[in-house]
Amino acid sequence: MKVVFIGVGNMGGPMAVNLHHSGQEVIAVDLSEVLREQMRAEGLATAESPLDVCEGAGAVVTMLPHDQAVESVYIQSGLLDHLEEGTLIIDCSTISPSQAKRLHEHGEQAGLAVLDAPVSGGVAGAKAGTLSFICGGTNEAFERAGPILKGMGSNVFRAGNAGAGQIVKIVNNMLLAIQMVGTAEALSFGVDNGIDPKVLSDIMKVSSGQNWCLDKYNPWPDVMTGVPSSNDYQGGFLVKLMQKDLGLAAQLSRASGSSTPMGGLAMSLYDAYARQSDNNANLDFSAIQRLFRGEL
Amino acid sequence: MKVVFIGVGNMGGPMAVNLHHSGQEVIAVDLSEVLREQMRAEGLATAESPLDVCEGAGAVVTMLPHDQAVESVYIQSGLLDHLEEGTLIIDCSTISPSQAKRLHEHGEQAGLAVLDAPVSGGVAGAKAGTLSFICGGTNEAFERAGPILKGMGSNVFRAGNAGAGQIVKIVNNMLLAIQMVGTAEALSFGVDNGIDPKVLSDIMKVSSGQNWCLDKYNPWPDVMTGVPSSNDYQGGFLVKLMQKDLGLAAQLSRASGSSTPMGGLAMSLYDAYARQSDNNANLDFSAIQRLFRGEL
Amino acid sequence: MKVVFIGVGNMGGPMAVNLHHSGQEVIAVDLSEVLREQMRAEGLATAESPLDVCEGAGAVVTMLPHDQAVESVYIQSGLLDHLEEGTLIIDCSTISPSQAKRLHEHGEQAGLAVLDAPVSGGVAGAKAGTLSFICGGTNEAFERAGPILKGMGSNVFRAGNAGAGQIVKIVNNMLLAIQMVGTAEALSFGVDNGIDPKVLSDIMKVSSGQNWCLDKYNPWPDVMTGVPSSNDYQGGFLVKLMQKDLGLAAQLSRASGSSTPMGGLAMSLYDAYARQSDNNANLDFSAIQRLFRGEL
Amino acid sequence: MKVVFIGVGNMGGPMAVNLHHSGQEVIAVDLSEVLREQMRAEGLATAESPLDVCEGAGAVVTMLPHDQAVESVYIQSGLLDHLEEGTLIIDCSTISPSQAKRLHEHGEQAGLAVLDAPVSGGVAGAKAGTLSFICGGTNEAFERAGPILKGMGSNVFRAGNAGAGQIVKIVNNMLLAIQMVGTAEALSFGVDNGIDPKVLSDIMKVSSGQNWCLDKYNPWPDVMTGVPSSNDYQGGFLVKLMQKDLGLAAQLSRASGSSTPMGGLAMSLYDAYARQSDNNANLDFSAIQRLFRGEL
Repeated sequence: MKVVFIGVGNMGGPMAVNLHHSGQEVIAVDLSEVLREQMRAEGLATAESPLDVCEGAGAVVTMLPHDQAVESVYIQSGLLDHLEEGTLIIDCSTISPSQAKRLHEHGEQAGLAVLDAPVSGGVAGAKAGTLSFICGGTNEAFERAGPILKGMGSNVFRAGNAGAGQIVKIVNNMLLAIQMVGTAEALSFGVDNGIDPKVLSDIMKVSSGQNWCLDKYNPWPDVMTGVPSSNDYQGGFLVKLMQKDLGLAAQLSRASGSSTPMGGLAMSLYDAYARQSDNNANLDFSAIQRLFRGEL
Repeated sequence: MKVVFIGVGNMGGPMAVNLHHSGQEVIAVDLSEVLREQMRAEGLATAESPLDVCEGAGAVVTMLPHDQAVESVYIQSGLLDHLEEGTLIIDCSTISPSQAKRLHEHGEQAGLAVLDAPVSGGVAGAKAGTLSFICGGTNEAFERAGPILKGMGSNVFRAGNAGAGQIVKIVNNMLLAIQMVGTAEALSFGVDNGIDPKVLSDIMKVSSGQNWCLDKYNPWPDVMTGVPSSNDYQGGFLVKLMQKDLGLAAQLSRASGSSTPMGGLAMSLYDAYARQSDNNANLDFSAIQRLFRGEL
Repeated sequence: MKVVFIGVGNMGGPMAVNLHHSGQEVIAVDLSEVLREQMRAEGLATAESPLDVCEGAGAVVTMLPHDQAVESVYIQSGLLDHLEEGTLIIDCSTISPSQAKRLHEHGEQAGLAVLDAPVSGGVAGAKAGTLSFICGGTNEAFERAGPILKGMGSNVFRAGNAGAGQIVKIVNNMLLAIQMVGTAEALSFGVDNGIDPKVLSDIMKVSSGQNWCLDKYNPWPDVMTGVPSSNDYQGGFLVKLMQKDLGLAAQLSRASGSSTPMGGLAMSLYDAYARQSDNNANLDFSAIQRLFRGEL
Repeated sequence: MKVVFIGVGNMGGPMAVNLHHSGQEVIAVDLSEVLREQMRAEGLATAESPLDVCEGAGAVVTMLPHDQAVESVYIQSGLLDHLEEGTLIIDCSTISPSQAKRLHEHGEQAGLAVLDAPVSGGVAGAKAGTLSFICGGTNEAFERAGPILKGMGSNVFRAGNAGAGQIVKIVNNMLLAIQMVGTAEALSFGVDNGIDPKVLSDIMKVSSGQNWCLDKYNPWPDVMTGVPSSNDYQGGFLVKLMQKDLGLAAQLSRASGSSTPMGGLAMSLYDAYARQSDNNANLDFSAIQRLFRGEL
């Protein structure tokens, strides 16, 4: 199937390449000639504007940085009106549920099938083709998107109707932030009282304190190998991206009037940490451990 | 080995019975004749005071409700001085690390081997013999205690030296409280935005939001069977016991000057919830879900 | 001077009447015929649309409920282009700073002088003519607005340039929320420990715990007369309005990346309180006292 | 009247001197010969032990650093039993209410009149004789203490019965911490959004955001003269002393089961700030402003 893939940066680039290797006919679209050149080097066709190549496309996949980019690419550009009826729209961007719902509405008015499908797994998952997709839309759109999503990732979930993918991603990442800050606080508390961080982690991992951070992403340096905390908090999921997701959670909680005290506090602690040094926002989000250690 | 087991209430009773069945010669000690009678019905010898039966004991095991009871049973009573040199003391109570260290000091002065060994697993784990013991003390004391602890539980961890068992239990339970409140907040937030709580739980369980609560103890009613949330929050680990453990964490954080913002907030939310209705303190701690649902 | 006053509801109505009594030629504009009739009963001229009456106006004053209403009345309607060059725009609505800045930009492009001038003092202050205005805009616009603002209130502050009025109001109200929740928490804490709430309030009022709430708006029932807490928390500044203002603070903190842990927590506690009973959102914001007392 | 004043350090020293100048016959007691020498230089009689000089004393005044010192000086030493019946005990230390109540009980058993009378006003107030005393005890003891307290301070409050002075001081200081952190957070938030800190402070001081910090102790550098924030946060009320008082609040809230989310969060933020640099604990408590500015 001809798939127009818009936005081939750090995340979108490897996703488009994997999709190409899965057997789809992918055309990579980006305003950046540098990125287009990288895609051509991987064997993909490219274009500067989706309007030039969307004829006959069976699906459009987007990986864009924020609400405004989604608004611009799909709605302000008139792209939705240029697509053939029934074309499948898969937006993998992490954006606000309200923007996602707006895309669903405009797409459905144009006779298209729309799926919001934000991902988790980061750049590493994008490269390895092991991303998870959390989808919102009709069951039919979800079924149709299956072969495309499986070409880029390993787990595909349907969270509900329009916008549900964004909502569940936001809620999951808020809980992740709570657990990361809580785990960092707990490890620091134990070490302050003379406990070895590895012993403490090992016991909590098989006790009621167990969580994903302790299992896969321990924030204390050198407790675990191959994680950002053991590499000066380089790489991984950056503090500034967690701030963005917690900001989406804050915005969503205003719309629904939900009380989110733990998520709100985690956000404020990330905000305070990011402020302490110019570089902190670009560290992995497990670097919040340093806030509790009194390190910059 | 002759083992004097002091404190045979809800937790200590089934522990003593299991220890008896594991082949040890257990003498159950309690001030309550009712509890002693229950122990005799299970085939155990009993006594009202440990001083009457401690001669020749190879080990003393205690399961007591608070610091003051530990102080009274071991130190004020003079029991430590009545035990033969080398006797093994295993205190399974959940108490402050400072009281635990005090017991170690007095015990060691009397030539005894002391282990602090608080448990997790609750009354159900005590009955099933599947408790976890988190121990603090010398490696030698830990090794000697193995056969006794294995007679009452399935997991035995050494957290470090004197008091380390209490510290790790406190830290673990603080993290558990953070995760339970965070999970309840996240589920409520998702439901407010139209997501099904079971779908949300299922996705987060295999994502970075995964934690013990989602896996074993979902706080939303009827997402999981056989947990307190699906039984009107009856039974389980009571709110008031979580308040006690969070209070021990607050006390310990004062001694070490540790910053525990998430744990402190979780405690305040439990305190506010317990205040809302006379019965709330006696519900399972997953009932904090109700605070976010606006239910009493 | 001819002044077009748009939005004459609970707040705007008495403001327009006071402005009329101060000697200005006020034309009250509202979509509601009921409200227009009330204005005519007070001797004001009225109109349904500002476009019908804006010719020759020296100033336009608006009191509108949210961003979208300001966007609609000024920008989408084309009103700005119908006003004579140099007309003074005074927007007294409490809206987001970004919307306020947008109004400034559009107004200045049309050759108008714009002031954002949100108020504090509530309906009582609006009726008594004792409102405070916190203004953002050029010094010239601020000077020109003086006579009009003094016709409706007693205190007029210039906070800075475009949007500064909204920003300072938001920051002030966030601090107010922190202090109200903090005061309620402190009073409850003291009473729990046997202290009389009036004695406690009297001592803190002349100590370092002093704040506006203790002085003017004690949240504990019957400590002070003539305040909502002594009248079942009826009237005053409603919980839902504080939630709105804290939502604006949350939104603004996302734009600036500011860490606002205390403000965020106050918001979450108001959100939790509002959820507990259908009526809570319509009580005065000092009713947060009840959250700490375990009352619905 | 002969008054034995025990503990003449930074606070107690100037208090004893002022009391001496007010006409009382003060004997300054301290273990430190250096401090006794300073007192003799001011014209006071001195002693190393209160037991040597308590005969004929009408009152004993103490200014000690913590619970254990109060326990030691009054109870373990046997001092209470050496005093004549009816002697007035005034303990100005800031200690736990439970320790204060213990002193009341032991004192009353010995036929003495006891008052807990913690102070506010700091070293500056001690020197200037402008301290405030917040007292707990019988009305009779309070009346008798009046002339002595007036010799050292300007405000004297009776908060209630035994321990009430300590409780009200703790509650007041918890609210102070909430307001200081809240004020620092609000100022930083405004400045992040382009508002001048002095303009913001001036507006909030006359609005509903008003509090003691804005009036007397602005945490933003150079908004106010003669306060620690304008002197690199030197002097004043140290971070470590606020941590001590917030620790007493945390301990008291455990005893009463009170929910103190804002106070708990303020404590955690002070704890985190104190950890960031070796010197932070010795800065004035308004230095929490730096946490929000991303400064060490």
